[in-house]
Amino acid sequence: MISITIIGSGNVAQHLIKAISKTTILEVTQVYVRNIDSVSHLIDYDKITNDISKLKNADLYIISVSDDAIQTVSKSLFFSNKLVAHTSGSVAMEELSDNNRKAVLYPLQTLSKKKEVDFTTVPLCIEAQNEADLQLLTEVAQNLSDHVYNVDSEQRKSLHVAAVFVSNFVNHLYKIGSDICIEHKVPFEILKPLILETAKKVQIMEPNEAQTGPAKRNDTSTINKHLAILTDENQKDIYKILTKSIIDNGKKL
Amino acid sequence: MISITIIGSGNVAQHLIKAISKTTILEVTQVYVRNIDSVSHLIDYDKITNDISKLKNADLYIISVSDDAIQTVSKSLFFSNKLVAHTSGSVAMEELSDNNRKAVLYPLQTLSKKKEVDFTTVPLCIEAQNEADLQLLTEVAQNLSDHVYNVDSEQRKSLHVAAVFVSNFVNHLYKIGSDICIEHKVPFEILKPLILETAKKVQIMEPNEAQTGPAKRNDTSTINKHLAILTDENQKDIYKILTKSIIDNGKKL
Ligand SMILES: NC(=O)c1ccc[n+]([C@@H]2O[C@H](COP(=O)([O-])OP(=O)(O)OC[C@H]3O[C@@H](n4cnc5c(N)ncnc54)[C@H](OP(=O)(O)O)[C@@H]3O)[C@@H](O)[C@H]2O)c1
Ligand SMILES: NC(=O)c1ccc[n+]([C@@H]2O[C@H](COP(=O)([O-])OP(=O)(O)OC[C@H]3O[C@@H](n4cnc5c(N)ncnc54)[C@H](OP(=O)(O)O)[C@@H]3O)[C@@H](O)[C@H]2O)c1
Repeated sequence: MISITIIGSGNVAQHLIKAISKTTILEVTQVYVRNIDSVSHLIDYDKITNDISKLKNADLYIISVSDDAIQTVSKSLFFSNKLVAHTSGSVAMEELSDNNRKAVLYPLQTLSKKKEVDFTTVPLCIEAQNEADLQLLTEVAQNLSDHVYNVDSEQRKSLHVAAVFVSNFVNHLYKIGSDICIEHKVPFEILKPLILETAKKVQIMEPNEAQTGPAKRNDTSTINKHLAILTDENQKDIYKILTKSIIDNGKKL
Repeated sequence: MISITIIGSGNVAQHLIKAISKTTILEVTQVYVRNIDSVSHLIDYDKITNDISKLKNADLYIISVSDDAIQTVSKSLFFSNKLVAHTSGSVAMEELSDNNRKAVLYPLQTLSKKKEVDFTTVPLCIEAQNEADLQLLTEVAQNLSDHVYNVDSEQRKSLHVAAVFVSNFVNHLYKIGSDICIEHKVPFEILKPLILETAKKVQIMEPNEAQTGPAKRNDTSTINKHLAILTDENQKDIYKILTKSIIDNGKKL
């Protein structure tokens, strides 16, 4: 068995506890949280502590707290030369305290406590300071997910930027679509199959190949009609700049 | 049986021919195309014509040609007072020739000849000049799809703008994500589960509720780190304007 201690009680920590419990090779030794009740629905009380000095020995400690708390929490660990990983996409591995052996286990997925997810489908990006630790981390990751990638801190940062575009920004475009529907009294419901199909298409096609619409066709008449319909300045600006980017992109090909 | 003539051989025309053939109540009387071979894999030769003066009688004629050809094609029909519908999201019903009774059957989905789709899941937005025609069109649409909506030309135009945001623009953000991956030598593959999950989330949650990321948290430190990573000016501008829009949106709540 590989013993793992989880530090944190948020979205990622909770999904990790559940996913580890489903494996036969990994076990959760202990969970450190500030508020005991936050994870008591997931694991026995005797495995939960809110006293950081009570942490027991484990093969791997996973710090899954807010980005800006990772450094402080890693410094507050009293032991040394153990394997400590964080789970962030945007924090460098180096930011972990030098007292311990550093690593990263970054789940590249949008995770919420409230929403179930099949953790075996979540891509895990891993990194470690030395070869032996990377091996152990690989074993851990492969027991949790079918999609494990070796990604260094620089690559992970660019993946995180890319993720902002394909997830956070995409979701904001869904929000704008929904706002336009509300304004013109049509149900947003009508757009949902299109949203899903657009995401499914790029699972099997290059995004470039899948591109359609007035900007792609450089159809200025439709583009101008659309701009006339939009009343919100941010919406207009976003329409213009994305249209320009699609047109510029066509010129590059 | 309701008899239907299809005019056109493109993405939508081909999906319509296939979907109609699967029903028991609707039948394709004839298909008008410029090039006979374009649909001969879908329907018997004796039902295909490339001579518009040879069109037979039908309950409904569906013009599914490029937006800018709809008007010309509708004017070129030699008969009068028959029910003629186009399939466009951005062309008003009024643009059809006055010689016939006007209607619209707009499939709000991204359709490609190459990609199969379960047509019963495609939202159909319908409109007709008079009540009796709307009834017939409703029967046709309900036999093709489980999602039929009455949408007038004004509403359809705004739906089309919303569709540009949630599909064409979203796909362009996928393209940018892919470009960032190529530039930093990480496989775009890693982002695909995130893309799908982001689209699935808004099937059951409000887009506003589903919003996450540095802009939502107003995390200027991460935002600046991301802007420093981006090398392309269009990418930088898009990052800034979408971040601003997410932040402005947070202030409104
Ligand atoms: N959610 C995602 O989709 C996702 C995906 C990939 C990676 N990540 C990364 O995973 C990490 C955790 O994210 P999350 O979404 O799980 O966060 P979250 O749900 O907001 O939870 C944050 C956790 O950090 C704890 N915490 C904050 N400051 C602390 C401190 N000073 N000392 C001890 N604990 C502290 C919180 O404890 P309290 O409850 O006591 O406040 C909470 O348990 C972050 O690095 C994030 O970037 C998140
Ligand atoms: N594809 C979609 O995702 C989608 C979704 C909803 C609505 N629509 C709408 O559906 C309609 C058709 O779109 P599509 O994607 O199927 O287009 P498409 O694949 O580009 O096909 C266009 C068709 O129009 C024909 N055509 C063009 N000019 C013509 C003319 N002057 N006379 C006769 N035929 C002419 C073409 O014939 P040739 O092959 O001989 O050139 C071709 O069969 C458009 O109004 C579009 O806005 C499309």
